[in-house]
Amino acid sequence: MRFNTLYFQASRRFLTSLAVPKRLPFGVLTGKDVGFFENVVGKANVRTQELDDFNKDWMNWYKGQSKCVLFPSSSEEVSAILKHCHDNKLAVVPQSGNTGLVGGSVPVYDEVILNLRRLNKNYSFDSSSGILQCDAGFILEELDDRLRTEGFMMPLDLGAKGSCLIGGNISTCAGGIRLLRYGNLHANILGLRVVLPDAKGSVVDFGSPLQKDNSGVHMHHMFVGSEGQLGVITGASILSPPAPTSVISAMIGVQSFAGCCAVLRDARRFLGEILSSFEVMDAATMQCLEENEQLHNVLTSSPNFSLLIETSGSEAEHDEAKVQCFLEYLMENEMATDGVLAANKQESAFMWKLRETAPLSITKDGYVYKFDVSLPLNHFYELSDAVKERCGDKVHRVVTYGHMGDGNSHLNITTKEPSFEVENLLYPFVFDWVVAHGGSISAEHGIGQMKRDYASAGKSECIGDLARSMKKVFDPQGILSPYKMIM
Amino acid sequence: MRFNTLYFQASRRFLTSLAVPKRLPFGVLTGKDVGFFENVVGKANVRTQELDDFNKDWMNWYKGQSKCVLFPSSSEEVSAILKHCHDNKLAVVPQSGNTGLVGGSVPVYDEVILNLRRLNKNYSFDSSSGILQCDAGFILEELDDRLRTEGFMMPLDLGAKGSCLIGGNISTCAGGIRLLRYGNLHANILGLRVVLPDAKGSVVDFGSPLQKDNSGVHMHHMFVGSEGQLGVITGASILSPPAPTSVISAMIGVQSFAGCCAVLRDARRFLGEILSSFEVMDAATMQCLEENEQLHNVLTSSPNFSLLIETSGSEAEHDEAKVQCFLEYLMENEMATDGVLAANKQESAFMWKLRETAPLSITKDGYVYKFDVSLPLNHFYELSDAVKERCGDKVHRVVTYGHMGDGNSHLNITTKEPSFEVENLLYPFVFDWVVAHGGSISAEHGIGQMKRDYASAGKSECIGDLARSMKKVFDPQGILSPYKMIM
Repeated sequence: MRFNTLYFQASRRFLTSLAVPKRLPFGVLTGKDVGFFENVVGKANVRTQELDDFNKDWMNWYKGQSKCVLFPSSSEEVSAILKHCHDNKLAVVPQSGNTGLVGGSVPVYDEVILNLRRLNKNYSFDSSSGILQCDAGFILEELDDRLRTEGFMMPLDLGAKGSCLIGGNISTCAGGIRLLRYGNLHANILGLRVVLPDAKGSVVDFGSPLQKDNSGVHMHHMFVGSEGQLGVITGASILSPPAPTSVISAMIGVQSFAGCCAVLRDARRFLGEILSSFEVMDAATMQCLEENEQLHNVLTSSPNFSLLIETSGSEAEHDEAKVQCFLEYLMENEMATDGVLAANKQESAFMWKLRETAPLSITKDGYVYKFDVSLPLNHFYELSDAVKERCGDKVHRVVTYGHMGDGNSHLNITTKEPSFEVENLLYPFVFDWVVAHGGSISAEHGIGQMKRDYASAGKSECIGDLARSMKKVFDPQGILSPYKMIM
Repeated sequence: MRFNTLYFQASRRFLTSLAVPKRLPFGVLTGKDVGFFENVVGKANVRTQELDDFNKDWMNWYKGQSKCVLFPSSSEEVSAILKHCHDNKLAVVPQSGNTGLVGGSVPVYDEVILNLRRLNKNYSFDSSSGILQCDAGFILEELDDRLRTEGFMMPLDLGAKGSCLIGGNISTCAGGIRLLRYGNLHANILGLRVVLPDAKGSVVDFGSPLQKDNSGVHMHHMFVGSEGQLGVITGASILSPPAPTSVISAMIGVQSFAGCCAVLRDARRFLGEILSSFEVMDAATMQCLEENEQLHNVLTSSPNFSLLIETSGSEAEHDEAKVQCFLEYLMENEMATDGVLAANKQESAFMWKLRETAPLSITKDGYVYKFDVSLPLNHFYELSDAVKERCGDKVHRVVTYGHMGDGNSHLNITTKEPSFEVENLLYPFVFDWVVAHGGSISAEHGIGQMKRDYASAGKSECIGDLARSMKKVFDPQGILSPYKMIM
């Protein structure tokens, strides 16, 4: 077991060392509150013991001290709970699959945990429009499986799909491996049912289950990516794309990052509308996979960069011809050291296993400092070099992989043991560097607790005030997920 | 000339007959104000005479009485203007190409007109990411032309592309003919520069020119589709898709609307990722084109519905094979009365001419009552039947065409002369019918002045209050585009 309690506390202190917020003057949960909640959701759905799994995030980086987890199963129950919390000024943290990486879905102090996993009753799909309407508590993979039986798919896919819930995906604007093709969730969320923590516990339908609706301010988009700060998403209307009938994967070796950019440019040209993923792993990622997981690259040229490219289309023969033509072009023009086209599902699955095991493999080095940044492509890999230069041999490995097609780099620095020195070298250096180079300090993971103190970096001065004013409109008592994105 | 002044006034009275709002206690423009504006934008860019083109919309449905049009050329100038208007409580209406259909871009009373067409200096494009950054005053077609020289395109296309400005497109969340493929503007707008009408005339960058940015509330989406109620968009970061190298059009005749739905379902299956448009025109549309424009359908079977389908792809041979296979399937299964595949650009252009001339052709009947609604497909064409039954021979024609692939119907009722009787038959009947059948009273045209009184129909009770509270955050004096979407 890598994380014991002491270790856990140390790591938490590290990551919030700049400013641990004080507990705000919220109410303190009483037996009367618990009784009220039991009336609303039933005694079996109020949990006041053995709460560790809900108080902690799955990385064991953050731990709150909530005394109570509630499991509502309808918007009406959520409404009654939030109205009560509003009236009694009890702080609340909405929790979906609790698969986040920034401490957003666990309490900081004693917030009531509103776990949404029982909110999974309503499901309807219209195959003529591709519009899914469902409760927020469905597991992403379950929705995807259901849609595939009708020839459709969910417009997002990510590592945590087996346990994350769609409501959490939406409230964090989750990204993942096919954003390049299907767009971010703003492209696909048509409407949301949201419960507000106001005096009425208002249940509000924002947007609609229609592809086009210009009949008012498009307020549902405010809840996409606002990490549960403004309301609790209890249902969604989602535009689902047709599922591809042909999926092809290929791995391509490239020696320079500039070369990777050239391959991306030509992938867009040759593969056009069928390009669905463009992932990068650097040599350090591959070394880590070999050393820690005994997984070997399918490429034999030991390239500095391995690009995992996927196409999704509706006609296998056409797609294969396009990919073949693209790979031949790369070889003829000496743009790649070597390339492997997956011959079947097993080979394809293995390529994806390399990519998807990368996050796990680095944890086996000891301790990991994780970054999830967006950068313009001309600076994408420079960051890795800057960190290597700054940290030298004080760190074990500097590993970069990520969704290159989206400009999203997952930079990871590993050490054998947690180290204040390395922490001080990295924070706020990496964030400052990213902002100075026109990037974002959070591409897809969000702000949560982890990046709270950096969230305003590089932004227009009044953004914070506007966000606080907006929060006041939807959450007048400020009880939703305090101490996080909007402070 | 179809519209004389008398006529114009009558039609305006019709369309806002339910509740003409009173002028609010805003300031009245003085010579001192004009002097201030001249200092900011230069004397040549303040216009106080011959303002008809700016006070009226292009359909001649609405006319305001502004005394002053300003032509700023930078965010800083817009800022100085809005700060002054805030301080003096002068109402302002932002105006882009003034091509809207709901009276949103013209003043209702004496609002200062902030015309944004000179805001077209900054333009930059990153071909590695496909991200365009530009001022809000560029003409849509000009941006599209520029991007095409680099192998990219604008993610939207609409009839007014030669005169509408991108800022107006964004603030109205314009739809158009390829939304099916490239998504609505929420899918493609990554960031916005907005000037707020607050005490500072704050210039704020919301979002960023990055494909993924989860570093705060995604506030830029609030301005997409809010019709200039919350701030003035002066610049945008836009994700541009690669331009297709192969575009194919086909017209297909179908006898029943249920048959059209079946064709759409199979188009998604056979054409998958290359399907870029799916438009419908009913028999009345074709009759109108023949009688008023002497344009004849390319289909010889005189079908009840003509479907115009377009594909956009990266490999002509593959696309042609897919379309051929699809058309053969339709014929073999007797799903179409006949079909024509455009053999060349001229034939394709003619098919689109039919579709794009439809809005003009109906105006030649005399007077037109226009509706732009979203409906679930199972009710899409029922509306036309309901209107025919209700109006009988009191109307000349009931014409339906639209973006069927998006569930967006353009229903048009024509009469020889404007008629109170017909007006009373249609309003609010059509809106009520649409709401009762799960649709939206505005799919893409917006609310503006035209639908102000109906905007809350079918919505959650507190939506209006929330919108007003949001407006208060961004526009504390309520000076931006009053008497329209948010009242």
